[in-house]
Amino acid sequence: MSKGPVKECVRSRTPPRERIIETARDLFHKHGLRGVGVDAIAEAAGTNKMTLYRHFGSKDDLIAACLTEAGREAAQEWDEWEAEFANDPKKLLLEWIDCAMACAVEDPRGCDIANAAVEITEPDHPARKVIAQVKTDHRDRLARICHAAGFRDAELLADALTLLVEGARVSWQSVGPEGPGSRFVQAAQAIVAAFGGPKT
Amino acid sequence: MSKGPVKECVRSRTPPRERIIETARDLFHKHGLRGVGVDAIAEAAGTNKMTLYRHFGSKDDLIAACLTEAGREAAQEWDEWEAEFANDPKKLLLEWIDCAMACAVEDPRGCDIANAAVEITEPDHPARKVIAQVKTDHRDRLARICHAAGFRDAELLADALTLLVEGARVSWQSVGPEGPGSRFVQAAQAIVAAFGGPKT
Repeated sequence: MSKGPVKECVRSRTPPRERIIETARDLFHKHGLRGVGVDAIAEAAGTNKMTLYRHFGSKDDLIAACLTEAGREAAQEWDEWEAEFANDPKKLLLEWIDCAMACAVEDPRGCDIANAAVEITEPDHPARKVIAQVKTDHRDRLARICHAAGFRDAELLADALTLLVEGARVSWQSVGPEGPGSRFVQAAQAIVAAFGGPKT
Repeated sequence: MSKGPVKECVRSRTPPRERIIETARDLFHKHGLRGVGVDAIAEAAGTNKMTLYRHFGSKDDLIAACLTEAGREAAQEWDEWEAEFANDPKKLLLEWIDCAMACAVEDPRGCDIANAAVEITEPDHPARKVIAQVKTDHRDRLARICHAAGFRDAELLADALTLLVEGARVSWQSVGPEGPGSRFVQAAQAIVAAFGGPKT
């Protein structure tokens, strides 16, 4: 992370809570939830452990806050797409397919929310509810769009597309661009075509 | 782990290397690769750290050995299926769909190989090649079966089914049985049907 004067200046104007979340998200993404400790996060955020614990009672609470923020960002992106393609849900669906692919290509570390579900083995971890909620919201958005686009079996199409995109992200991590993750767009388009057009 | 006389007797007849791998796979599966250390593995395997390091130079090498063993078991299962349904590749494909679903239902912790890809962030980790090889073999088996069953676009169907099953395992970890993971069979059957029957 740059420590130049401009960065420092911007950083000093960002409140500590936001700064810690931003830094933690970056480090968790790169090294995994268990691959980085609160000391390293506090230091990289230009603060100290006491401040971190004042804002977040524990590392687990910080993880939950990071995933909540990731979910908020994703929801905002959906809102923007839905506003842009309000009159053309089928185009929105195809747009989503392209964007999901771009995410996989740009970022071989996969989805932070799904990765968290792998790393968090405790059933009562505070992030568990956040993970389930964000993933359920994502799937329900897809289902609404599939319904709006008039697909005959919109619920199953939304399930299939959700599984495909989850699979693409995780497969990219295992096999890289040589694997089936790189054929996500073709697979998703084939499924959309198979589910047919509007109800008659 | 039971420490009764029968268990102890069986354990003492298993060579240390196999005992360590078996124990490590169980603990890694439950707690994640980073959630358990070599001390705990050695103790649970009824041995000591020195013996563990004599067989596996490092924890990373032990992880690679565990994933190699998981891949060997999976390959053996495929061999048995392929022998059983040698004359009916389409039935083999449907059998695989049912078995994949059963795996997801029985074991909400997902696939150990895919989980390892999430936890291992170092590109030069010795397990990386094992992960890529096992996943590539799995996908290629599916493609051979889809070809043998006469599907028109066998390669893309194999890719789509691979992404679906990876997605089902990871979705089950995030959302549980309420999520789209539980609709894997319907989604996979719909895709198989969409890709049509034998070439004409």
